[in-house]
Amino acid sequence: MPDAAPRAILLSIGTEILLGEILDSNAAHLAGELARLGVELRAVRQLADERATIAAAFGEARAAADLVIATGGLGPTHDDLTREGLADALGETLTPDQGLEEELRRRFAAYGPMPTSNLRQALRVPSAKALPNPIGSAPGWWVDRDRSVVVLLPGVPAEMRRMWTEQVVPRLEAHFALRPLHVRTVKTFGVGESAVAEALDGLLDAPGDGISAGIYARDDGVHLRFATREDAAMLDRPVDQSQQLLGEHVYGTDEETLPSVALRALAARGVGSLASVESGTAGALLAILAEANGSPVTYAGGVLIADGHVVPAGPRADAVLHLVLLPQDPHGRSRVQVSMDGATVLPPTEIRIHGSGPQRQRRAAFAALDTVRRAFG
Amino acid sequence: MPDAAPRAILLSIGTEILLGEILDSNAAHLAGELARLGVELRAVRQLADERATIAAAFGEARAAADLVIATGGLGPTHDDLTREGLADALGETLTPDQGLEEELRRRFAAYGPMPTSNLRQALRVPSAKALPNPIGSAPGWWVDRDRSVVVLLPGVPAEMRRMWTEQVVPRLEAHFALRPLHVRTVKTFGVGESAVAEALDGLLDAPGDGISAGIYARDDGVHLRFATREDAAMLDRPVDQSQQLLGEHVYGTDEETLPSVALRALAARGVGSLASVESGTAGALLAILAEANGSPVTYAGGVLIADGHVVPAGPRADAVLHLVLLPQDPHGRSRVQVSMDGATVLPPTEIRIHGSGPQRQRRAAFAALDTVRRAFG
Repeated sequence: MPDAAPRAILLSIGTEILLGEILDSNAAHLAGELARLGVELRAVRQLADERATIAAAFGEARAAADLVIATGGLGPTHDDLTREGLADALGETLTPDQGLEEELRRRFAAYGPMPTSNLRQALRVPSAKALPNPIGSAPGWWVDRDRSVVVLLPGVPAEMRRMWTEQVVPRLEAHFALRPLHVRTVKTFGVGESAVAEALDGLLDAPGDGISAGIYARDDGVHLRFATREDAAMLDRPVDQSQQLLGEHVYGTDEETLPSVALRALAARGVGSLASVESGTAGALLAILAEANGSPVTYAGGVLIADGHVVPAGPRADAVLHLVLLPQDPHGRSRVQVSMDGATVLPPTEIRIHGSGPQRQRRAAFAALDTVRRAFG
Repeated sequence: MPDAAPRAILLSIGTEILLGEILDSNAAHLAGELARLGVELRAVRQLADERATIAAAFGEARAAADLVIATGGLGPTHDDLTREGLADALGETLTPDQGLEEELRRRFAAYGPMPTSNLRQALRVPSAKALPNPIGSAPGWWVDRDRSVVVLLPGVPAEMRRMWTEQVVPRLEAHFALRPLHVRTVKTFGVGESAVAEALDGLLDAPGDGISAGIYARDDGVHLRFATREDAAMLDRPVDQSQQLLGEHVYGTDEETLPSVALRALAARGVGSLASVESGTAGALLAILAEANGSPVTYAGGVLIADGHVVPAGPRADAVLHLVLLPQDPHGRSRVQVSMDGATVLPPTEIRIHGSGPQRQRRAAFAALDTVRRAFG
């Protein structure tokens, strides 16, 4: 049996998160990074800028996890209390670090005198090693004590990400015996989550020893995710089996997307350039086509027409994809009309979709691309 | 002294969140809602789809808070374990609810037979009241027991938001003695966060007794937020003062948006309908204009042109707004070119914007609307 993955807890510290004023994108970014590295993230906790709350959270997290990562609360102001909270949890005392203080004064030299409040950022507990912050005033901390590692990172996303990549990842790789996670994804469109699960006939419950399976309903369809920390080749069997059981509903695996697959199918039919005309979608189809990178088909552009307005001449292209998202019925269901004209013709087709708001608009766009994929793929 | 605000803990349940596979936008939305209602959010916890973990989290949260709100894990599949986890924490048993089962069968009647796995969504513990879900198969729960309320909401954002607004908010207002937070927002565009703070000359640090102040950089500009649980009229002074100090950079307050203000200015100039042509933006401008509700100007539609392609005839309208987002320079800055022709003419203007990715595209669109607002407002 291989060693278990190290267990991590993430603390996002900041009252503004709990007021709903900012989205905690740091947690989502670090969660993805930890998964990739082979660290098992057990929980994320968002908490307020309160010294006692922060100290208690560090205490609980250190007892439960091998690795505790905290973002936020390292600024110079009175409500930046992450340093104090961790010092309390460790039973250590904050003292000024001469080197950090000099580094801070150097940073500020270009702007004028350093506000005294910034001196708080040069405080350190004895067991903490400082992590340099080349693009901000808040240094991070690396604390390795009592069989658990605590990492403090700034809350500003750009500073956090750079310190994470340059300072933390190499230390984690040196400290823990990491076994990165291998992941394969199977992507379907046009079939619901429970119908997919049913068609897979128990594969999600028993994907194989050492393999975990997940099913996710996304705007671009239901995705299956198989992962293992052992041999990547072990994932071929559940991926192949899913493809066989789900048949034509599968449009791709891993990095493949609905636009990439649909555009590849059109290129194989000799379409060199594509334009689009849509209504009812707030431009969801043209936004997706404009962002499809590395496509073999040139996207000339798209037109969004408001209801009741005349369709104008759109950008010139070999083929034009038309999409109309009709209003929702009383059950919240919608239908989309898809057709294509030009060099490659697709007769008008009507498809039912679910969802509301921007999700419904994006699903309409993906339904159009799925129609192309099924017709020409 | 007024009564203390009820204390809440939010649980976001889903292994996919901890794997970084999806962004937990539900927590941010609910955090903002709770702040507005006058509920003090103490913590957000994201946890995996594991029955024992979920049960422990509900146990701890119920002991610490007056209100526990959980999103996610109400689907039909084997890894949707929120119902089971809460039942364990409450020491109650899940049993089929006849009414919920009939409701589910009615939902599925239109599509064909209901997968048996969906029957799990009709399970309920005795102390739970079901909350109807008009746009999805997962009902919510309202559990009022032992001086704490637990609310279960689906993880699909559209379903969660509708159930929250229609079912949960009225129940919370009836159950708790809430003192809603009064919030006023002042919105600026075209000036940076630190420049705004400097121009306000200490107002953010001392907005007045019982008033809190915040400053947030967003895609549609830097926003100031003043809040109080006391008399709403107390907020007039800091709002007026901000408007005076920031002058023409302020485009509106509260519910006013850049599109609403820009379109109102065009309507005042006699523009009845508007079309748009843009490039480099993946359609950010047309998406924003298409979603501008209740505008006095009809939006006829928009065109996205890929670089190097010929501008076609767009939808017909009284005025056409043109936007070109130029590529980023080596410092990550971008410039946008804005002009308008038709009945209302705006000579070509160039503006510098910051940011990258979709944020940069949205900022370009807002810069175009701000240009219209400044020219005609």
